[in-house]
Amino acid sequence: MPSPEPIRVAVVGATGYTGAELIRWLARHPQVRLTAVTSEQRAGKALADVLPSVRGKLDLRLASFDPTEVARAADVVFTALPLGASAPGVAALLERGVRVIDIGADFRLRDAQEYARWYVPHPVPHLLAEAVYGLTEFCRDRLPDARLVANPGCYPTAALLALRPLLARDLIEPHGIVVDAKSGVTGAGRNVAAEYLFAEVDDNLRAYKIGAHRHAPEMEQELRPFAGAALSLLFVPHQLPIRRGILATIYVRPRSGVDAAAFARAFEEQYAGERFIVLSAARPPEIRDVVGTNDCALGWTLDARTGQAVVVAVIDNLGKGAAGQAIQNMNAMHGLAEPTGLDYLAVVP
Amino acid sequence: MPSPEPIRVAVVGATGYTGAELIRWLARHPQVRLTAVTSEQRAGKALADVLPSVRGKLDLRLASFDPTEVARAADVVFTALPLGASAPGVAALLERGVRVIDIGADFRLRDAQEYARWYVPHPVPHLLAEAVYGLTEFCRDRLPDARLVANPGCYPTAALLALRPLLARDLIEPHGIVVDAKSGVTGAGRNVAAEYLFAEVDDNLRAYKIGAHRHAPEMEQELRPFAGAALSLLFVPHQLPIRRGILATIYVRPRSGVDAAAFARAFEEQYAGERFIVLSAARPPEIRDVVGTNDCALGWTLDARTGQAVVVAVIDNLGKGAAGQAIQNMNAMHGLAEPTGLDYLAVVP
Amino acid sequence: MPSPEPIRVAVVGATGYTGAELIRWLARHPQVRLTAVTSEQRAGKALADVLPSVRGKLDLRLASFDPTEVARAADVVFTALPLGASAPGVAALLERGVRVIDIGADFRLRDAQEYARWYVPHPVPHLLAEAVYGLTEFCRDRLPDARLVANPGCYPTAALLALRPLLARDLIEPHGIVVDAKSGVTGAGRNVAAEYLFAEVDDNLRAYKIGAHRHAPEMEQELRPFAGAALSLLFVPHQLPIRRGILATIYVRPRSGVDAAAFARAFEEQYAGERFIVLSAARPPEIRDVVGTNDCALGWTLDARTGQAVVVAVIDNLGKGAAGQAIQNMNAMHGLAEPTGLDYLAVVP
Amino acid sequence: MPSPEPIRVAVVGATGYTGAELIRWLARHPQVRLTAVTSEQRAGKALADVLPSVRGKLDLRLASFDPTEVARAADVVFTALPLGASAPGVAALLERGVRVIDIGADFRLRDAQEYARWYVPHPVPHLLAEAVYGLTEFCRDRLPDARLVANPGCYPTAALLALRPLLARDLIEPHGIVVDAKSGVTGAGRNVAAEYLFAEVDDNLRAYKIGAHRHAPEMEQELRPFAGAALSLLFVPHQLPIRRGILATIYVRPRSGVDAAAFARAFEEQYAGERFIVLSAARPPEIRDVVGTNDCALGWTLDARTGQAVVVAVIDNLGKGAAGQAIQNMNAMHGLAEPTGLDYLAVVP
Repeated sequence: MPSPEPIRVAVVGATGYTGAELIRWLARHPQVRLTAVTSEQRAGKALADVLPSVRGKLDLRLASFDPTEVARAADVVFTALPLGASAPGVAALLERGVRVIDIGADFRLRDAQEYARWYVPHPVPHLLAEAVYGLTEFCRDRLPDARLVANPGCYPTAALLALRPLLARDLIEPHGIVVDAKSGVTGAGRNVAAEYLFAEVDDNLRAYKIGAHRHAPEMEQELRPFAGAALSLLFVPHQLPIRRGILATIYVRPRSGVDAAAFARAFEEQYAGERFIVLSAARPPEIRDVVGTNDCALGWTLDARTGQAVVVAVIDNLGKGAAGQAIQNMNAMHGLAEPTGLDYLAVVP
Repeated sequence: MPSPEPIRVAVVGATGYTGAELIRWLARHPQVRLTAVTSEQRAGKALADVLPSVRGKLDLRLASFDPTEVARAADVVFTALPLGASAPGVAALLERGVRVIDIGADFRLRDAQEYARWYVPHPVPHLLAEAVYGLTEFCRDRLPDARLVANPGCYPTAALLALRPLLARDLIEPHGIVVDAKSGVTGAGRNVAAEYLFAEVDDNLRAYKIGAHRHAPEMEQELRPFAGAALSLLFVPHQLPIRRGILATIYVRPRSGVDAAAFARAFEEQYAGERFIVLSAARPPEIRDVVGTNDCALGWTLDARTGQAVVVAVIDNLGKGAAGQAIQNMNAMHGLAEPTGLDYLAVVP
Repeated sequence: MPSPEPIRVAVVGATGYTGAELIRWLARHPQVRLTAVTSEQRAGKALADVLPSVRGKLDLRLASFDPTEVARAADVVFTALPLGASAPGVAALLERGVRVIDIGADFRLRDAQEYARWYVPHPVPHLLAEAVYGLTEFCRDRLPDARLVANPGCYPTAALLALRPLLARDLIEPHGIVVDAKSGVTGAGRNVAAEYLFAEVDDNLRAYKIGAHRHAPEMEQELRPFAGAALSLLFVPHQLPIRRGILATIYVRPRSGVDAAAFARAFEEQYAGERFIVLSAARPPEIRDVVGTNDCALGWTLDARTGQAVVVAVIDNLGKGAAGQAIQNMNAMHGLAEPTGLDYLAVVP
Repeated sequence: MPSPEPIRVAVVGATGYTGAELIRWLARHPQVRLTAVTSEQRAGKALADVLPSVRGKLDLRLASFDPTEVARAADVVFTALPLGASAPGVAALLERGVRVIDIGADFRLRDAQEYARWYVPHPVPHLLAEAVYGLTEFCRDRLPDARLVANPGCYPTAALLALRPLLARDLIEPHGIVVDAKSGVTGAGRNVAAEYLFAEVDDNLRAYKIGAHRHAPEMEQELRPFAGAALSLLFVPHQLPIRRGILATIYVRPRSGVDAAAFARAFEEQYAGERFIVLSAARPPEIRDVVGTNDCALGWTLDARTGQAVVVAVIDNLGKGAAGQAIQNMNAMHGLAEPTGLDYLAVVP
């Protein structure tokens, strides 16, 4: 056991969907002690009164977020806050000497101008360069020394795990890539708005923010080193009538001479030994294969008739797309085996 | 009133999902008398015992299919049978002098060799040339004299209504087209197989038959006259956890200089006066907009960053994708206004 | 045709779920002209921008509610407003000489003290006595002369249609009745609250307001004339993960000697000739049998082992439970056949 | 650690829904080695090809059931087979000296005549007396020596945990009890029948087998010792459009003078220290509180107006209602702490 002392962990923003998922896993993590949970709207309440599934299992009370208190109670802090609410809090926590894994969007883009273009002017731009973009399979070398991890967005996690091995090996054209992604509603957080009501979502499907979603620049930032200026990627998200899960159907054009075996070799080579990457060449993976887990499953099909290829990537947006990957990052930061506390099987059916 | 005598109508294969949808509409069609409904497995039963929603509303008994009986009872017959079961029955009905609208796949491909490649050798290939491919908006001139109408597949209906106006006007490249389509489970018919069980479908999404679905050659057959040999189209269907509805997200590359206004002009020109085509430029249409109707709603977005365009098409797979379009065809065959008996609003929410 | 001049109709509160359902039916009602639709939050917008399913089908603009304008435009007004918002508007409309069908709760209880106990002090108590409780099958004699109809609640509609024939014939004990009802979420209206989010409702079931729901006194008011002081009824509602539909499982104790045939005779006698009551003795009705319709389907089972009986009643809460029954009342008020414009079959599946 | 040697475990009937749930838990149970999984229809296949969620996580191959092979490979066997298929296999396994936990119905009724009345004549009636009815909270004293455990049905588990403490303390009348239960579709197993298709179940609710479900005699058998001949219980199950979970709304009549505090004391006294019983007096429990867990949550409300009380019990039908309780029983049989390998939190949302 590498860590006889448990890691003391706080969750800032514990009552959103990502917060609830962090708590589900952290409460049973063998090397973690969950010491603080915060919520501005529910401060003072017992966690079990807000999240009934922990009744009788976890005796914690929600507090308002106070960086000094949290820094005293925790070695590492997960911040799971709405857009723009993270940055100032993260800065305050770092000043107080704790490590932070931010699950919001505030530190994912390295370029402050790009951030301003898609979001708002960044309140603490000096931290952008320091933040490690936490796609664990590609950043783990930097994690033991990281103070601040920017946990990737859910859509980029799926798209990058599928595309990066192919672009890095120059197996596909860098332009004309299409990411047609379909997500469960929890991807939008616990957002009390009419468009997320049951009666609006059930038995429906809608495309939204076509070519205009904020996760597109995040994908491009991470792929440009392998594709150069030629990179062009169109990202179209859809909202599914399900709670959790993303399935991304990704359309690419293989370079001349590249076949399905070359795709297989690329993925096998890239992900050999990875515990959370599941390769499924014979059958395209389905969302249910991974719900409740930290897995990303990948499948691929090359279509000789049209000269195109299709890569299917599935994740649980709250798992590998948020809370799961955040804990995987925490494990790597603290020298624990990455699957520690994350080694679940999907709840099927 | 163009038709003082009601049209006598039979539904062969009345207990599948398309059969039930035909009955829902035909039972309230002001110019129709529903005279016969058949089912091999439920022959002899009252229709209300198989389809409880008609109890107290429609007093019909299911019979086994006998072409002579059906031809005596009906002027026009809708055949809604599983794959391969239609062709012989259709031939027998035509010989007995009734008109047939076939909602299966048996008469959609004009080329018997192509049919054999995707299905099986065709049992009555001489009828392939005669069948009118019944995408009403494009074939209505031929309907008054048609003996046999091949009602289009659900996926092709959505894709063709979106793509044909653009290809016919040479606004987009004919190669590299991607049709990423998502369908409710009734698209597969009342298929009692494990993959359609509630516990397998609910809260899941899966891609299937990637680049290998039988609706692809149907799309190509209908588009090739406008695109020539350069046509290349990749079709990827997905199964949604909903009962009805298709949303097709279609990726195309506009020709140089073509902008969103050109797309708008093309659709407006093509579909001026069409009662079942709804153009929705400002907001991409959603599946719920059309469920329970015979509508196809179209939206489009041009993405300057990547030089691609996205067309979103939605239909109810049992409406415009099957029973609704079949009745629209019947109306046109008999000189009735096409919306007769079909002029419903969507049940929302 | 009894009414050559169409009835001019207004919908006040047109953008809630009941408003949308009224519009769906009224837009195709052969004797109705929809002249005004109001919404406080969306005033000024085209209806099609708020309710996309009417795009291309209905060209109306939402206005803010002005009783004088509405009274000028309409002969009859449907008010579908949140709790407490109806009463003053209804009074203003009546003063201006139009007839009103109120789909809220404001005029359902005849006793102002009882109303105050469950809701708030009534703003216009003098109107309570005048309002006709609009369970059409039992009040139609009073409708031709009614100025104000209080459309019944969705749960009471199901419970009363099941229980009243049995109590009126003294077939069951009046005490110990249990109404265990399960409803789709639209029963709560378009309520933007966390508990109605898709991610909270999907794959869940919850009981709520056990023995404390405001529809209980409405049921008791209508049943007490047949049961007297001995009436005791426990009402427990549940929220289903579906959009529409109520299934009420009602537990009663038959009087000594009463058997299933007696139940059948009671229902057949009571509902002979009723177009919207479907009796289903052999198979308990299911919610899907009636979704999208104005029907109420009833089934019953007597259990010799325990001396109890179970009556199952299903309705669409937006149909017979709200908009459908309101239109049925309008038809009766204006001397039209009750099924006019309501004669739909359920959309199945 | 009480058991340094892992328990060798086999699952007979591994590809049904209960089998899959057993595997999900057993694969991560710290004291278990899963040595054999059987399936008649899929024998010879890799488990991951049938249950994709285990790909990369569990390397097992399905075999046809051979009692000798299974008895050689395992110390304890879970049998999760369709009705009637268990009994002969269980007998064969017991003869070979292994312990068996049967999750089917074959050994739940102690009386062979009662079994014959509800099912068929029992093939091995001599084993009925030996089988321990495995409602763990009430049978754990007998488990260390048990050879054969009859795991309770899902509905009885919920009903018995709610009713037994009240009847044992004589707090309620023993007659006139109503169990109105609502279950997800996996309660019917992986049953490939039309009534379990997605398009039939989604957005629907149906009552079935009113007063005639085979779980009723199981409830009565276990309650009669506390209620005597006066016991009368009406059980009405409903099929919900969800995958997992049961909510039972139970109607009882408290004895004179019994109040909510008395109910609370009964449940607290009965279930003090129980890790899988969650008491929720202030808020009725919801299905989502327990999905994916081995918990049973209980709430209660006394209604002074009608003199009735309502107990709400929720379980996951595949958890405490099947696989979870089976593993809890296994733990108790082998002297392990009951929560071993079962200590999950619910996946919410």
